[in-house]
Amino acid sequence: MTQDAAGTGFWAIVPAGGAGTRLWPLSRRDEPKFLHDLTGSGRSLLQQTVDRLAPLAGERVVVVTGEAHAAAVRAQLPAAVADRVLAEPSPRDSMAAIGLAAAIVERDDPDGVVGSFAADHVIADTDAFAAGVRRAVAVARDGWLVTLGVTPTYAATGFGWIERGAGLGDHDGAFAVSSFVEKPDAARAEGYLAGGRHLWNAGMFVARADVLLDLLALEHPDFAASLRALAADPATLGEVWPTLPRIALDHAVAEPAGDAGRVAVVPAAFDWEDVGDFAALASLQPERPAGPRVLGDAELVRSVDATGLVVPAAGRTVTVVGLDDVVVVDTGDALLVTTTARAQDVKRLVADLAETRPDLL
Amino acid sequence: MTQDAAGTGFWAIVPAGGAGTRLWPLSRRDEPKFLHDLTGSGRSLLQQTVDRLAPLAGERVVVVTGEAHAAAVRAQLPAAVADRVLAEPSPRDSMAAIGLAAAIVERDDPDGVVGSFAADHVIADTDAFAAGVRRAVAVARDGWLVTLGVTPTYAATGFGWIERGAGLGDHDGAFAVSSFVEKPDAARAEGYLAGGRHLWNAGMFVARADVLLDLLALEHPDFAASLRALAADPATLGEVWPTLPRIALDHAVAEPAGDAGRVAVVPAAFDWEDVGDFAALASLQPERPAGPRVLGDAELVRSVDATGLVVPAAGRTVTVVGLDDVVVVDTGDALLVTTTARAQDVKRLVADLAETRPDLL
Repeated sequence: MTQDAAGTGFWAIVPAGGAGTRLWPLSRRDEPKFLHDLTGSGRSLLQQTVDRLAPLAGERVVVVTGEAHAAAVRAQLPAAVADRVLAEPSPRDSMAAIGLAAAIVERDDPDGVVGSFAADHVIADTDAFAAGVRRAVAVARDGWLVTLGVTPTYAATGFGWIERGAGLGDHDGAFAVSSFVEKPDAARAEGYLAGGRHLWNAGMFVARADVLLDLLALEHPDFAASLRALAADPATLGEVWPTLPRIALDHAVAEPAGDAGRVAVVPAAFDWEDVGDFAALASLQPERPAGPRVLGDAELVRSVDATGLVVPAAGRTVTVVGLDDVVVVDTGDALLVTTTARAQDVKRLVADLAETRPDLL
Repeated sequence: MTQDAAGTGFWAIVPAGGAGTRLWPLSRRDEPKFLHDLTGSGRSLLQQTVDRLAPLAGERVVVVTGEAHAAAVRAQLPAAVADRVLAEPSPRDSMAAIGLAAAIVERDDPDGVVGSFAADHVIADTDAFAAGVRRAVAVARDGWLVTLGVTPTYAATGFGWIERGAGLGDHDGAFAVSSFVEKPDAARAEGYLAGGRHLWNAGMFVARADVLLDLLALEHPDFAASLRALAADPATLGEVWPTLPRIALDHAVAEPAGDAGRVAVVPAAFDWEDVGDFAALASLQPERPAGPRVLGDAELVRSVDATGLVVPAAGRTVTVVGLDDVVVVDTGDALLVTTTARAQDVKRLVADLAETRPDLL
């Protein structure tokens, strides 16, 4: 491998999972949100993720997804990336998914560095993202497990935070991690924002593949051994996979390694959106001179005294009269009307549909 | 003819016109509101109107509609009624439409009494309606132009009122009309409601056919002569129709005849709804244990913390989360989302569509 973080030796792992329940009826069980163009760019979130990583990893991208979505995932990717898609026989949380990809990278490129980047994130400032990843890769080559910490812009309670400690002497712009913090309440989040030592945890990890698996082996030796055995003999996947622990990478590796002083954080100032609900989706669409924002063909939307978001995904004309911050999502077989303020409660609707109309999920 | 108001000698005229603009996208230019089932009864407003008149007029019903809708109208009616449908070559307001029907009745039944009842009204208490019409017919046989005055239940500003004068000596429950009042402002409407002498003008007139045409002839002799000539020689319709004045029956006959002391009013206490907008349409649908009211298949509607009206006319599932008094109308090619409070403003949307998407009207 070379020492160029954007050259050979850096591999991107892209876990493509998650139901996107709060984006129903746009996101479906058979077509989850990462397969959708949610920004009006003409590219799905998955494709945008791979596009964003191309300057860093080229075609050395390993997408891990469920068997049910593997064909749709491959169809959206360039052939070289499609050929490397890993299909999980069943969902077993992020450590198994990322760990298997890391073991395969380790097998093919023993000095390789891996970075894990979810398939359903939206990042507009790709330059700032790339700069952060390049710095993280340089730090990772020295044996650190590195996490990207996004510079916070508000007191978010919706995701975890990272407290940074002392700077790493030999790497400008990188710090030891003092602690990982679970989703805080509003008061604590305000404190983190004001204090200036906390960053958002975007769940983006970079490490040498062997370091990642060795760190896993410290706490879960059988798990790490199973992953390496699977990489050596992929034919055993169907047999071994169901025996792997269901655990998130954060708990399996990052938190214990953080306690052991093995985790660094690279702060990076890029806007980052995991498109968790329709309020987030609305914020991603451009404002219009009048009327609601539109994801899709704005010619299909007509309104009088209305704001919010319209997704005319069924190709029909959608009209809104006299509603602010309304969300209208029109698909071929189902229609949702809600508000940005109630966007989180779409999951309550989906829970009801799971009982009464599972065919619509 | 017999003297039985519910027997031979009474003819119902049903003008079936009006765009129903504020009920878009349910009501369309090619399928106006009277052709729709707006009460979930399985019968269109037109069919319900003819059903309601059957005990009074049997099959002696003359529906007058535009040429564009004549086929659809006939298709909804029993054969004997369908055979009598009059197709207007162009819209020329209510006097021409009702007057032509009256002239044809006069030709076939010189002593016949006609009553005019719009095709797009909803009346739940058909017994009270029938009793009012029977009384009106009895009064009309004595040469009066009789209007049904609906007992008001609130200070309506949306339609005209009728002030009653002295009782008719020889007809219990019938009064001379003192004056017709245009749509009043709220303060005057409150006064009418409190005073007890005013009734709602539902636009329902009953008169001997010859009396109606003779009253018209007092003010518009050429108009009355043209209508009678058309009845005698219907083949001239295409030629004569465009020459007829565009005037409403109220202005052409009722108001002058009222001034001349020739108009009587029969108060009748039935609920009456002209379904002018989606707020009115919502009020016609039954309440449900939870969630919005539904016109159509309630199984297609799922909601969390929502009230209002859903019309799932496209057969798709419609879901609503966290909106009160919302109106969602789902049709095959267009969707409307508004509120009952803004229901009147649908006409603003339709005015915009007339410019930009006339194909959707």
